[in-house]
Amino acid sequence: MKEQPVKFSSKTVHYFFDVDFSILTEHYPKEKLLLITDENVYGFHRQRLNGIKSIVIKPGEARKQQATVDAIILQLLEMQADKQTVIVGLGGGVVTDIAGYVASIYKRGVRLVQVPTSILAMVDAAVGGKNGIDVGEYKNQVGTIYQPDLLLFDYSFLSTLPREEWINGFAEIIKHACIKDDSQFEFLAHHTIDDFINDKNLLASFIEKNVGIKLNVVLNDEMETGERKLLNFGHTLGHAIEACYNLPHGHAISIGMVAAATLSNELASLSLPEKDAIKQLLRKYGLPVHFAFDTDKIWDILANDKKRENNHMSFILLNKIGEGVVQSIPLNQLKKLIHQRLLD
Amino acid sequence: MKEQPVKFSSKTVHYFFDVDFSILTEHYPKEKLLLITDENVYGFHRQRLNGIKSIVIKPGEARKQQATVDAIILQLLEMQADKQTVIVGLGGGVVTDIAGYVASIYKRGVRLVQVPTSILAMVDAAVGGKNGIDVGEYKNQVGTIYQPDLLLFDYSFLSTLPREEWINGFAEIIKHACIKDDSQFEFLAHHTIDDFINDKNLLASFIEKNVGIKLNVVLNDEMETGERKLLNFGHTLGHAIEACYNLPHGHAISIGMVAAATLSNELASLSLPEKDAIKQLLRKYGLPVHFAFDTDKIWDILANDKKRENNHMSFILLNKIGEGVVQSIPLNQLKKLIHQRLLD
Repeated sequence: MKEQPVKFSSKTVHYFFDVDFSILTEHYPKEKLLLITDENVYGFHRQRLNGIKSIVIKPGEARKQQATVDAIILQLLEMQADKQTVIVGLGGGVVTDIAGYVASIYKRGVRLVQVPTSILAMVDAAVGGKNGIDVGEYKNQVGTIYQPDLLLFDYSFLSTLPREEWINGFAEIIKHACIKDDSQFEFLAHHTIDDFINDKNLLASFIEKNVGIKLNVVLNDEMETGERKLLNFGHTLGHAIEACYNLPHGHAISIGMVAAATLSNELASLSLPEKDAIKQLLRKYGLPVHFAFDTDKIWDILANDKKRENNHMSFILLNKIGEGVVQSIPLNQLKKLIHQRLLD
Repeated sequence: MKEQPVKFSSKTVHYFFDVDFSILTEHYPKEKLLLITDENVYGFHRQRLNGIKSIVIKPGEARKQQATVDAIILQLLEMQADKQTVIVGLGGGVVTDIAGYVASIYKRGVRLVQVPTSILAMVDAAVGGKNGIDVGEYKNQVGTIYQPDLLLFDYSFLSTLPREEWINGFAEIIKHACIKDDSQFEFLAHHTIDDFINDKNLLASFIEKNVGIKLNVVLNDEMETGERKLLNFGHTLGHAIEACYNLPHGHAISIGMVAAATLSNELASLSLPEKDAIKQLLRKYGLPVHFAFDTDKIWDILANDKKRENNHMSFILLNKIGEGVVQSIPLNQLKKLIHQRLLD
């Protein structure tokens, strides 16, 4: 018997903040570019796409399934897309997830550029290399961790983003501030969502900082064995509510963050005024902080969560604003707390 | 505008040569192991699998399609296989390809162990992390490069391998010798396939050396931008013939190697006696060196090959035995040569 360890290599991603989409053709030959986008983005921005070959999918989370991937693969083969193809995901989280996944599996991986066009995709979905498709009603059960060559932030695409989607995106922005950066939390508290919608420079400099939080966490823990779990703040309960009630993602995790803040006050060192400040900030950015959910139903989903281990569940709490912590909570204690006044 | 490069991390694979399959349960909790195997291997070796949970697929290349992957994913979800699952690919190249692919996409990647049970899988399919599924008749159009945690070589599984499959496997063994190691070529020329079938120690020491060739090539070029292409020696034409005529993989690439040797004599510095020695060695190990294929049909498939780039195709030639080289051949020249006497 002989044992031989063999070490494999790594990769570098280039983040371009505040650039124009058109720089793409400076980086790659136009004929090698292949856009994957959805009907909404294509409808609004077709004239800016400069005739780049495009695969246009129907919008919406319901399309984030293998059938969509199968259809895209067949189109790529028909187009004779080769190993030198550069797949460009241009859209919100569903598009960047599908584009990322397809790029990672087509001919065992082709180059990928992500151009997120929603706040949610800019600060979360497109950052960190995670992609995924749903299997039936189960979210993100299939996917890869696949880093793009480039990630372009062109804020002009946000001009057609509905206000509801700005609000959704700010839920993740606030989450990042809560777990890692009290100064960003303060900055958000001194502004409104309209400040960001109306001032591109303010938005650009803030998004870059906020993306930096996620990026640092991901870099410290690419394969999600430790610190990356902090990014689940508000998501354990949030995902359960989202699955159960079909709320927008940002709304669901806002409610989840309020619940996690309440738990943080009971089980970690988050003060009551800090907990209230979190609720207040979420409300200020148009997010719900109250939701009369069916606690039994939600508990059933939670008890099946993949973050459960034996009789404990790994939960993200805050010691204070800007300091998230992974804590293992006994299931019976969690059950009691959830059936009590979690959203007060 | 701001550009920020970000570097991601790497991984280590442990190769265990000449071990017993049972060491698996020393490395992982048995309840976390999940075998993917086929009806042949399962039928022969069921009693050795020690009750480890298994997903058993039908054997054969025709099953290497997305439909099989879909069915396995559904079974994994039904079994509530979580992120701590260790998928074990136990079988020949089709099984290790499917198991590797599934492990790379299920829940964005779970741990993978490969236990190749054929010569072909031991020296080729399971080594280097490449996996793939076919899309219709197009081979390996979808897949990933995903490294296992462990790769176990348990030669006792070979006791039930049909002679035809030994012959198939030796095609890849000879390929490795051709592109990188003339001393292994000589060693093969001084033995017969029965020497290896009948002497486990001879086999074990030779397989380890032969795997070493592939491993070195892969390590120098994990993402196949350069040297790894050498492993395609005989495969460009071989794959086309395989797709067209449904020959065994080893037979197809044997014919492909003869063709590539002929091209190497025309376009690189391979001598005629060396070309003949390659044909002779392939014939000695029971492999075909002649095949009257339909050149028009084969050309159509070649023109769609993923190794095609604009008007050239990247082709692997030999400067001499033990020295492969990547050469870009203009498509029109290649077409002419293929329509001539490529297999003389």
